[in-house]
Amino acid sequence: MKKTSAPRRRNSKKSSSIAPVAVSSVVIADIRPCLDCGAYAPKGILGEDFIVEADIFKDGHDKISAVLEWRVAQGEWQSVPMQALDNDRWRGAFPLPALGFTEYRITAWGDAFLSWRHEIQVKTQAGILDLSTEILEGAGIVDAAASRATLPGDAECLRGFSERIRKADASSVGGLASASELIALMRACPDRSLATSSRPLRVWVDRPRAGFSAWYEFFPRSAEGLPDRGSTFRDCLPRIDDARAMGFDVIYFPPVHPIGLTKRKGRNNSLTCEPGDPGVPYAIGNRRVGVNGGGHKDVAPELGTLEDFDWLVAETRARGMEIALDFAINCSPDHPYVHDHPEWFHQRPDGTIKFAENPPKKYEDVYPLNFHNADWRSLWQELREVIAFWCRRHVRIFRVDNPHTKPVAFWEWIIADIQREFPDVIFLSEAFTRPKMMQTLAKAGFTQSYTYFTWRNTKPEITEYLNELTTSEMREYFRPHFFTNTPDILPEILQTGGRPAFLIRAVLAATLSPLFGIYSGFELCENVPIPGREEYLDSEKYHFRARDWNAPGNIKDFLRRLNTLRHDHRAFQKLSNLRFLEVENDQMVFYVKSDPQGSDVFVAVTLDPHHPQTAFAHLPIEEYGLSQDEGYRVEDLLTGEIFSWKGSRNYIALDPQQRPAHILRILPTGLPQ
Amino acid sequence: MKKTSAPRRRNSKKSSSIAPVAVSSVVIADIRPCLDCGAYAPKGILGEDFIVEADIFKDGHDKISAVLEWRVAQGEWQSVPMQALDNDRWRGAFPLPALGFTEYRITAWGDAFLSWRHEIQVKTQAGILDLSTEILEGAGIVDAAASRATLPGDAECLRGFSERIRKADASSVGGLASASELIALMRACPDRSLATSSRPLRVWVDRPRAGFSAWYEFFPRSAEGLPDRGSTFRDCLPRIDDARAMGFDVIYFPPVHPIGLTKRKGRNNSLTCEPGDPGVPYAIGNRRVGVNGGGHKDVAPELGTLEDFDWLVAETRARGMEIALDFAINCSPDHPYVHDHPEWFHQRPDGTIKFAENPPKKYEDVYPLNFHNADWRSLWQELREVIAFWCRRHVRIFRVDNPHTKPVAFWEWIIADIQREFPDVIFLSEAFTRPKMMQTLAKAGFTQSYTYFTWRNTKPEITEYLNELTTSEMREYFRPHFFTNTPDILPEILQTGGRPAFLIRAVLAATLSPLFGIYSGFELCENVPIPGREEYLDSEKYHFRARDWNAPGNIKDFLRRLNTLRHDHRAFQKLSNLRFLEVENDQMVFYVKSDPQGSDVFVAVTLDPHHPQTAFAHLPIEEYGLSQDEGYRVEDLLTGEIFSWKGSRNYIALDPQQRPAHILRILPTGLPQ
Repeated sequence: MKKTSAPRRRNSKKSSSIAPVAVSSVVIADIRPCLDCGAYAPKGILGEDFIVEADIFKDGHDKISAVLEWRVAQGEWQSVPMQALDNDRWRGAFPLPALGFTEYRITAWGDAFLSWRHEIQVKTQAGILDLSTEILEGAGIVDAAASRATLPGDAECLRGFSERIRKADASSVGGLASASELIALMRACPDRSLATSSRPLRVWVDRPRAGFSAWYEFFPRSAEGLPDRGSTFRDCLPRIDDARAMGFDVIYFPPVHPIGLTKRKGRNNSLTCEPGDPGVPYAIGNRRVGVNGGGHKDVAPELGTLEDFDWLVAETRARGMEIALDFAINCSPDHPYVHDHPEWFHQRPDGTIKFAENPPKKYEDVYPLNFHNADWRSLWQELREVIAFWCRRHVRIFRVDNPHTKPVAFWEWIIADIQREFPDVIFLSEAFTRPKMMQTLAKAGFTQSYTYFTWRNTKPEITEYLNELTTSEMREYFRPHFFTNTPDILPEILQTGGRPAFLIRAVLAATLSPLFGIYSGFELCENVPIPGREEYLDSEKYHFRARDWNAPGNIKDFLRRLNTLRHDHRAFQKLSNLRFLEVENDQMVFYVKSDPQGSDVFVAVTLDPHHPQTAFAHLPIEEYGLSQDEGYRVEDLLTGEIFSWKGSRNYIALDPQQRPAHILRILPTGLPQ
Repeated sequence: MKKTSAPRRRNSKKSSSIAPVAVSSVVIADIRPCLDCGAYAPKGILGEDFIVEADIFKDGHDKISAVLEWRVAQGEWQSVPMQALDNDRWRGAFPLPALGFTEYRITAWGDAFLSWRHEIQVKTQAGILDLSTEILEGAGIVDAAASRATLPGDAECLRGFSERIRKADASSVGGLASASELIALMRACPDRSLATSSRPLRVWVDRPRAGFSAWYEFFPRSAEGLPDRGSTFRDCLPRIDDARAMGFDVIYFPPVHPIGLTKRKGRNNSLTCEPGDPGVPYAIGNRRVGVNGGGHKDVAPELGTLEDFDWLVAETRARGMEIALDFAINCSPDHPYVHDHPEWFHQRPDGTIKFAENPPKKYEDVYPLNFHNADWRSLWQELREVIAFWCRRHVRIFRVDNPHTKPVAFWEWIIADIQREFPDVIFLSEAFTRPKMMQTLAKAGFTQSYTYFTWRNTKPEITEYLNELTTSEMREYFRPHFFTNTPDILPEILQTGGRPAFLIRAVLAATLSPLFGIYSGFELCENVPIPGREEYLDSEKYHFRARDWNAPGNIKDFLRRLNTLRHDHRAFQKLSNLRFLEVENDQMVFYVKSDPQGSDVFVAVTLDPHHPQTAFAHLPIEEYGLSQDEGYRVEDLLTGEIFSWKGSRNYIALDPQQRPAHILRILPTGLPQ
């Protein structure tokens, strides 16, 4: 026999690598989750189960054993057995153990003992009487396990079994092969010499608030709603307490930094600024004010001092809430960076710095930074330092303005680097842009993402979009945050639908997504737009606005009830437990949020803010052990009312003024009527 | 500013790597084809276009340029521009240049010139009159290109353009920016300093016969169809010429090696063998016969000598055909390996070698090899040497028996290693097993694969299976080979459907897949099974069978016509150009095979071998520039008949006895009626 070359094992088809000690037989493929071949990590929540699936199979007829393994920070691998589903698909799950990265992989092997057990069973059933060789083989397999045992007791016990097998015959070996003690011992001492392990992948683990919270956005200068002057940080607590009473747990502030004077915008985005106009908080930086340079690491003096800010952060934390800051990489012409680092900006041939534009629109009050300038490293590092500065002041949530206009590679780096130091930091991506860019920003590290929710109003729009978010691969990395409105977005339905539209959109946001938020004024049903636009008239972005935070017609109590239900029912705290159910009316949606450990909740919402709507809704009663002719009771969790229903098809009447939605649970039978 | 760490670029989220010179902005994702993250190579055919798609996008509003690049054997990268489709999807294609591996990758960058052109266009349209700074910027961009130019003429020409731009004004710069000569020059001198290149992937390129051929399988000992003795290699030419006349180009022989005597099977798989029974060719090896050891590198002496075999190979090649050998890793107890390498087999505790079994079934005449034995390297190497031995005798096609009972890693290694030396070798996987194993064997290197075709008979079965093969990712690596029958498979429809069933299954196999084959006897409509089984009664696997190769009722002429059509119409030479069309009868299928460079072919086949069937078939006439009230003519390529049709819905009558199918093309208007 002429040897031309030694057999080698290869990781990729037809490329050479080093010959292994033994060649594994098991194929492990199509592991899920696995984002872009492992380039990105799926996301999970501390303590929640992480489910992994894969195709696992091998040549021939051997039985397979497979375990899902995980470890934190190069520690010991832990493992849990995987179960075969069908068509060579296997599944396992483990609870996510710590913030940060957890590695996971699958190890599988042909299991000689299980294969032997199966062979004995089949041959016994076929009535084969001479199993003497098979019995010797089985005893040998058990002996080998004994020699692998790490506990002396196990080894002794296994040797006892091998002796009993050796003395058995065709009529008794089947019983021995199925002894549960033997099976457990064999599982504890597996022969993994020919095992295959998949390449480790990583899951990023966030704290619970990353996956479930309710946000309330307000401009701190509007805290008191005064017509002629702004409030300060020290004035903000009543507003925060009010938000808390409504059930919100994250307070999100637009930028709190000094505001530029050059080209400052006036009322309703006017190019001319009147004396006393406070300016747009997004025109960041004024190097002549503030105690800390006047840029992104400073607060606007009209809001107070850094100490005032620290006090407010602490007071908010004491209430079980957090403040989220806005990370907007915009510089006003007065920003200290413009003075100290003109090379960080886009220079024009005429020596000026290029202001922002989206031709033919111009934004002369804002200079964008050049992320590819020759000294980009120092720019990137400085921006990292901005975030770290606020982290050190105990801020742990950042809403990032327009991340899609900066390189994805920048976000990938800065989020990773910040989370390496502060693994509990949450980043919300405010990218309203093309779908693949939004998805990629989420893969690259953003904890949460703004969505198209504000523009999804009809039944097909809502069902299609939610199905994409909750059933596609997006559910593994893209945590949708459903804002009903923002300072820039007053959607048409709110402009035209009156108070009922606010109730409807609140129910949808609060029950379809575990993350939802409102921009203040929503609770007051503020809805006057600039005509023909989806922007607010007289927006507080540009000037002081008088507001009565308890104005008649407000929906604060309704929001409080929604948030209470979200807290009381775990079904609302997850994303992908959503399923749309049939309801015989195109102006209604009907869906169930499931909770295998608690109770499923059914939500019926009218989409019509103008007229009452009725319909028959279809409940999958067979999944709840009910039959078509069986009566049962459902409780409306919003109102406490109890309805008697029967079978799967039941009548629903919704009135956008009084009852825009049912939020129902099926009552256990036996409770008093 | 405190520096905690330098910004780094990362390949995977949150892992560190070395800081790059510059950070790219473009994201390239979801490249297709890409099998298992590049672990396996998709397949292509020499000279055919290889199409690559990817998501390509970047931050901000810059325009993007992207090229598809390829190279062979570490040579120079060549490139072709990619085109944007929609939703950030791009596509490019190049003709596959050589047998073996070709690398491909995508390079994309934000294109300052294209972005500047767009800005000029938008601002000009908006009527902005002062573009002096933009003009300076444009001139600078063109100057920079001049400094990158590798041809002095280009540099000079670009400098001329930059001068003209510098002297332009808002009314004239738009025309300059759109000058086609400038655009071509700028494309030739791109600024790729911030380009992103994807990780290279590889496509495996086969010769044309790997993708398009018609196989004819026969047992050489049956060449003459004698009742009492076997034919030799020297007797095979008439059978090969007959196959050639029918249009087949690959002759596939079951194993031609010496056959074991120990436990030799008799007629109809009997355990008792009568004197003169020739034995099953799959019980390979008899170390007491042959001139080359009597194993896998020898021929059965009753067939002739190795020289006789070489002569037959040469004669077949001279006819433009090839002989495919069977690579069956089975050893009879008489195989030289059993004597020389008992350690290569599964040893039992009683000292015997384990024969093959699938409990409770036993196959005492065959010993399987142990691919994980302690000396596995020498076994694997020897099996490689078997294939190389036949390659050196000018065999280039191997049909591999039951690959799914050997480790996938073995196939991955041996196919790669053989194809490194002989890149034109074709391997056909004979795995009738679970779908994921069949797919993985194809990914691991098998050129072609047997399929479930023999068991897909109804309209839903055929359409669902063909859609899977031609539209899923399988089409990139799994080349289905449609055998109508095999020595082991006489499907029920052939048993019960008579001659019409043979016609129907021949049309389906020959027109649905560019690779199809028959096992000899099919052309004679042989269809007597072992009762209740799908196996042939009196199979020639076990004994000599008398046969008249020109028996009345044969369908040789029909097969010849099918193969002629396959050769004349490129539409039949591709796999994924298939689309099913509506036909108003569940007993018919109707499909089009498209050929953008030639003519599309429409196939209507009855699935009912017992009764005539009629239906209205729907032609997508609008795709051929025809309107509903327009008459046109179609030609039946099987019969030469011409039909006058009108509109999309036309009447079809098929008769399984006389006309089991239409194979139609639309005639150009203007030809004589």
